[in-house]
Amino acid sequence: MKIIAIHDNVVSIRSHLRNAWINFSEMTVSAVAIITDVVRDQRPVVGFGFHSNGRYAQQGILRERLIPRLMKAEHGALLTDDEQNFDPVKAWQIMMTNEKPGGHGERSVAVGALDMALWDLTAKIEGKPLYRLLADAYRNGVADTDVYVYAAGGYYYPGKDLTALQDEMRGYLDMGYDTVKMKIGGASLDDDLRRIEAVLEVVGHGERLAVDANGRFDLETALRYREAIAPYKLKWYEEAGDPLDYRLNAEVAKESTTPIATGENLFSLQDSRNLIRYGGLNPNRDYLQMDPALSYGLVEYMKILEMLEQHGWSARRCIPHGGHQMTLHIAAGLGLGGNESYPGVFQPFGGFADNVPVEGGRVRLPDAPGIGIELKADLMRVYELLAN
Amino acid sequence: MKIIAIHDNVVSIRSHLRNAWINFSEMTVSAVAIITDVVRDQRPVVGFGFHSNGRYAQQGILRERLIPRLMKAEHGALLTDDEQNFDPVKAWQIMMTNEKPGGHGERSVAVGALDMALWDLTAKIEGKPLYRLLADAYRNGVADTDVYVYAAGGYYYPGKDLTALQDEMRGYLDMGYDTVKMKIGGASLDDDLRRIEAVLEVVGHGERLAVDANGRFDLETALRYREAIAPYKLKWYEEAGDPLDYRLNAEVAKESTTPIATGENLFSLQDSRNLIRYGGLNPNRDYLQMDPALSYGLVEYMKILEMLEQHGWSARRCIPHGGHQMTLHIAAGLGLGGNESYPGVFQPFGGFADNVPVEGGRVRLPDAPGIGIELKADLMRVYELLAN
Repeated sequence: MKIIAIHDNVVSIRSHLRNAWINFSEMTVSAVAIITDVVRDQRPVVGFGFHSNGRYAQQGILRERLIPRLMKAEHGALLTDDEQNFDPVKAWQIMMTNEKPGGHGERSVAVGALDMALWDLTAKIEGKPLYRLLADAYRNGVADTDVYVYAAGGYYYPGKDLTALQDEMRGYLDMGYDTVKMKIGGASLDDDLRRIEAVLEVVGHGERLAVDANGRFDLETALRYREAIAPYKLKWYEEAGDPLDYRLNAEVAKESTTPIATGENLFSLQDSRNLIRYGGLNPNRDYLQMDPALSYGLVEYMKILEMLEQHGWSARRCIPHGGHQMTLHIAAGLGLGGNESYPGVFQPFGGFADNVPVEGGRVRLPDAPGIGIELKADLMRVYELLAN
Repeated sequence: MKIIAIHDNVVSIRSHLRNAWINFSEMTVSAVAIITDVVRDQRPVVGFGFHSNGRYAQQGILRERLIPRLMKAEHGALLTDDEQNFDPVKAWQIMMTNEKPGGHGERSVAVGALDMALWDLTAKIEGKPLYRLLADAYRNGVADTDVYVYAAGGYYYPGKDLTALQDEMRGYLDMGYDTVKMKIGGASLDDDLRRIEAVLEVVGHGERLAVDANGRFDLETALRYREAIAPYKLKWYEEAGDPLDYRLNAEVAKESTTPIATGENLFSLQDSRNLIRYGGLNPNRDYLQMDPALSYGLVEYMKILEMLEQHGWSARRCIPHGGHQMTLHIAAGLGLGGNESYPGVFQPFGGFADNVPVEGGRVRLPDAPGIGIELKADLMRVYELLAN
């Protein structure tokens, strides 16, 4: 049982979207395929992976460091002790050989993409969907059969007016979503309040709307927005300030009547632990959005969940950034609180299996072995080129 | 006045060295050259840059994101307002366009290499050594004419015994160094104490010896080492635990009689600020080692120095990691406490201008315009290929 080859490709997901920090005109994703000599249904098993949007493709780190380390690993070093499957935890150790501590970015994205492919591979060899493998291995077989998802949109783009924003949000409700999220901080406070009120007209009440500042605000602005949005009783107020400014976060969280959400720009156990230690979050009120597919993968994410438990946080407070099938499986298999979704954007990576509708704001899990990338036709086209 | 081309290359600095975390068998550095249409002494001015050792070359990020952004910048966008020189601060903003906050690693290294070349360029166009440019621009013309340096060595490598370690350290004293540093944490505490005592026999007293654990220890081990080394009254105890575990650092620092040194694995203003906020360091006793050439360059480092000043830290407490000419110029021009040096290792990037001896543990600054890479023959050979 061994890896025959690992291929990667850089896929453009460029768009005209803009949040408070960046536009997505140059955005790319690394897609990876791990080809093995294991045969199932008369075909070699191939694991597919990618990373989440918002951080760029990592071809350099993949080709110069991580892929060569996996390919040079000694026979059996990537396998479980009984040699019946690959072991993503052992593979993780090999990928991170001769990597110094600290500096968690980019590298964490590259490892995240390969980690996804390793878990896809492992689940395919076991013949189980990943969420079932995770529930069996780590949760005594208890899995959620569907997962809460919310529609993240409401980006700024040229020429978009309030009517277009309302139409977008109405579209999400029509698709079956119950909660929507919109960007703030890319316009003035007054304009943003008008945008929020326009969306509230569509969704009906604040519990169905979250807002996301993408880390744009200084403390004063963050507090001004906090006070201004308080009357709407929104679902959450996301990433008010710089993701590493834990003190700002604590100031914002302290007297917030709106739940706080953050974490998508923390890419390691160590950074996540600092948020919990210093960020002033409330485990009974707030949400954590760390994204395994940007943060050294599921192997690291399980360490993060363990750290959270030690600090009194339930996994149900975790709703990862990412909006794709990998985080959906993790949510169902490990009992998270839900999963982000970006209907229609960051394609073909965003979204779930074809023909699985969102119903009542929840998505069911597929039965196919692995993550189910084969069940999403436009995504599978990316991998047809890589898989041979 | 414009950039004609930017070239980069990946240079191996492989060696048999080992610290407590990694070996250097795969270590690489990105060398960059920025070629302009500005002419001085009948030749086009070229800026040279690289990043410090310990983090790998960044060809992917350089070629896919940073270099294209600089090359696509509008006419004048990289220049000072009077268009008489390039402006590294404006160039920094352009390099970081469409880059999200957080995730400070790798990208920070790539920016650091280009930032070095931009400062080299700027100083050459002004016809001044960089330290003089910095002193004139930011310190009312006050510059240090020589800089405290210490010899960082004492690595683990196969077959190295106590005699070899003592010979190595004696060699540094013979070169003119007054203080030396050695690795700990790659052997047992007992073995490390024997190694420390062997070096103390050579250097005479603890004030001339620092020890570096490279982030290897958990809290219990860190405290055990702290107590065990206390009687030696060493120069400093460096990076006991994970660089992002501020709480561990604070526990170690609290009752340490040995000064604490850390920061080389924090790559941004935000991470450095968290160390100052939460790391329990003492501005009258401890040392900060943040390295501009791994951390978004001198542009970011000046923001770090400003943050430090706001928190009551003198720049004299800063002794950057890196061991090369760029940090030497910064130390002299901005009044830092000193600079690391790695005699004979991480060549050709480590070390200073040829024929500038270390005297009394200090190094004088060269007079040539720029950083002085042209004054180090083995290093200049790297750039001869890149500069055309």
